[in-house]
Amino acid sequence: MNLKRYLLTPGPTPVPPETSLAMAQPILHHRSPVFMEILGQVREGLKYLFQTEQEVLILASTGTGAMEGAVANLLSLGDTALVVDGGKFGERWLALCNVYGIKVDRLAVEWGRAVDPQEVARRLDARPEIRAVFVQANETSTGVQHPVKQLAEVVTPRPNTVLVVDAISALGGYELPMDEWQLDVVVAGSQKAMMLPPGLAFAALSPKAWEFVKTSTLPKFYFDFSKQLKSQNKNQTPYTSAVTLVLGLQEVLARVKNEGLEKIFARNRKLSAATKAAVQAMGLELYAKDYPSVVLTAVLAPPGIDGQQVVARLREKYGIWIAGGQAQAKGKIFRLAHMGYIDELEILGTIGALEVVLNDLGYPVAPGVGLRAAQEILAKEA
Amino acid sequence: MNLKRYLLTPGPTPVPPETSLAMAQPILHHRSPVFMEILGQVREGLKYLFQTEQEVLILASTGTGAMEGAVANLLSLGDTALVVDGGKFGERWLALCNVYGIKVDRLAVEWGRAVDPQEVARRLDARPEIRAVFVQANETSTGVQHPVKQLAEVVTPRPNTVLVVDAISALGGYELPMDEWQLDVVVAGSQKAMMLPPGLAFAALSPKAWEFVKTSTLPKFYFDFSKQLKSQNKNQTPYTSAVTLVLGLQEVLARVKNEGLEKIFARNRKLSAATKAAVQAMGLELYAKDYPSVVLTAVLAPPGIDGQQVVARLREKYGIWIAGGQAQAKGKIFRLAHMGYIDELEILGTIGALEVVLNDLGYPVAPGVGLRAAQEILAKEA
Repeated sequence: MNLKRYLLTPGPTPVPPETSLAMAQPILHHRSPVFMEILGQVREGLKYLFQTEQEVLILASTGTGAMEGAVANLLSLGDTALVVDGGKFGERWLALCNVYGIKVDRLAVEWGRAVDPQEVARRLDARPEIRAVFVQANETSTGVQHPVKQLAEVVTPRPNTVLVVDAISALGGYELPMDEWQLDVVVAGSQKAMMLPPGLAFAALSPKAWEFVKTSTLPKFYFDFSKQLKSQNKNQTPYTSAVTLVLGLQEVLARVKNEGLEKIFARNRKLSAATKAAVQAMGLELYAKDYPSVVLTAVLAPPGIDGQQVVARLREKYGIWIAGGQAQAKGKIFRLAHMGYIDELEILGTIGALEVVLNDLGYPVAPGVGLRAAQEILAKEA
Repeated sequence: MNLKRYLLTPGPTPVPPETSLAMAQPILHHRSPVFMEILGQVREGLKYLFQTEQEVLILASTGTGAMEGAVANLLSLGDTALVVDGGKFGERWLALCNVYGIKVDRLAVEWGRAVDPQEVARRLDARPEIRAVFVQANETSTGVQHPVKQLAEVVTPRPNTVLVVDAISALGGYELPMDEWQLDVVVAGSQKAMMLPPGLAFAALSPKAWEFVKTSTLPKFYFDFSKQLKSQNKNQTPYTSAVTLVLGLQEVLARVKNEGLEKIFARNRKLSAATKAAVQAMGLELYAKDYPSVVLTAVLAPPGIDGQQVVARLREKYGIWIAGGQAQAKGKIFRLAHMGYIDELEILGTIGALEVVLNDLGYPVAPGVGLRAAQEILAKEA
């Protein structure tokens, strides 16, 4: 057993010890003035994080609950939606639409590729009845960022259609200004770049999206966005708040505000560039052919080596947790996350460990070749 | 400001410090062998707590999510359900059925009263199409326990009907043996007698209820019980587990197993009897006219005194948090919880404080009259 454990998985990610201690405080009652004041602060902090003036709904669930809420609150039975399906989480939008009787125009995107906004425009032109476009900002299964800014430029002029962005692994990790880019719905989760344990999900809606909510007839109760909004406007939640997680959120949001989004995004870009340069210097290829993600690096395993072996060996030898591939990418890739509470030492250490592990598995890497590439990037000014 | 804060509300309830520390451990990945082993232990511990051989589903939400899941997983559009509506949480079953297009036979029960199982039998005889009976084990808003054992005796012989029990504020607080009493669905939450922060909900289903799930056509995704069961059978959850809360759950379940359900139930009965004897010795009346709850005591405020004033004054003067009345009972009652991590000292202290507060508000109480009544009960052998 290793002395310590390092979590470089794309969620859950490490939680700062100060945040863990904040969550270990004695339980507050969710209707108490002191908790309501905290909720008020958290509401403001979330607006900063989402870069929006809209209310950010705070749901006691994991991110999938907020995804379900987006479908159930915006659409009605028999509506048509365009789903960008370029990975495991694109598939989740598909499954959700199917469950709720939404007709789906599936835009299949090859894994490792990003969606082409012009193809979305063509589909919307061909089928003006499409009410919503569902997409991932960052498709965690492939390490690809879909171009949501450009997608919004396609969708925004159409009064009958909204853009719904799953930003669960993106929000707080890189630039995603909701209001400036005119994203209609942004969904997030606590356990990725937000540095919290799993258990909170978030959703923010543009005024246009709130208009859609008014006409939606799909059933919803626990994830009823209107009820949630009404309650939050009184610094409450409709049901019992997840009070310990909200205390952690308060701590994290203060941390984010204190450092500033720009610095956080710059750090992640640097860690990402260093990681990508390192694996490429080792002769490995990125899985993402378009827009490689800033928050994680998906790497093709060398020929003849199972990506899962890389994952297992890093874990067994060094206590470093990274992720393997999912579904069709299983065995073919491994994925290192660099978002939230992750710093340069951990990236350098992981690259050093990866060099050893690849050599162990029979893929020759000259000692230090990846590390030097990473060091060069990290040495540059932000 | 008081030096300390005491939480005698019927949820959230205090969390043992050891449990808070368990939850402050570094984050585990939800697909890691170590976490899967913990989930395996937790699954066993939950069976003990629910007194069932069935799988207990672990949902990352508050209790209402599991209530919604019970409706969405068992019924289909146009089905008929009997809802026992004797308080705020009975109303929640009504609202849920309405959202999902379930026809409701509403059995209105006066607040403070328990449902009559014979009335349920008559309704089921009159309308054999009723597929489910929804009820609270403990109606938190009134402090009444509905007689679910007798309700099960009415429902169990009917192959076409299941009994769905909201045990959110009951489970772990008093005797509610799911298998022995043949309860079809038992729903629970983490933040009451289970001594955890809010954020986990639970549902266990009888084989008969699982048969209902097979034919249900209502939409569900995040709260899809079949998917949850399949995943738990592999020591996983379908989406990211709320890992910190599950670590807390492991700690709490070990505590429960170690003390034993019988002792826990005996303690709560004693605390309940002491509290009830004390307020009655002060000349106050219980709000519950039938089956007063073992886990909380709802007390009618003295004539001319607003129950909310009692709540406010206990909080301001002593840092003791109790609950007021909800909806039609607002102002008329106040409620003291005695479940989970609450002991004799806190009950004695709260009764002592209540005597002072009532005198302050103009209702004369001879000093010590409530305390003596409580002491007598507490002095008895369990």
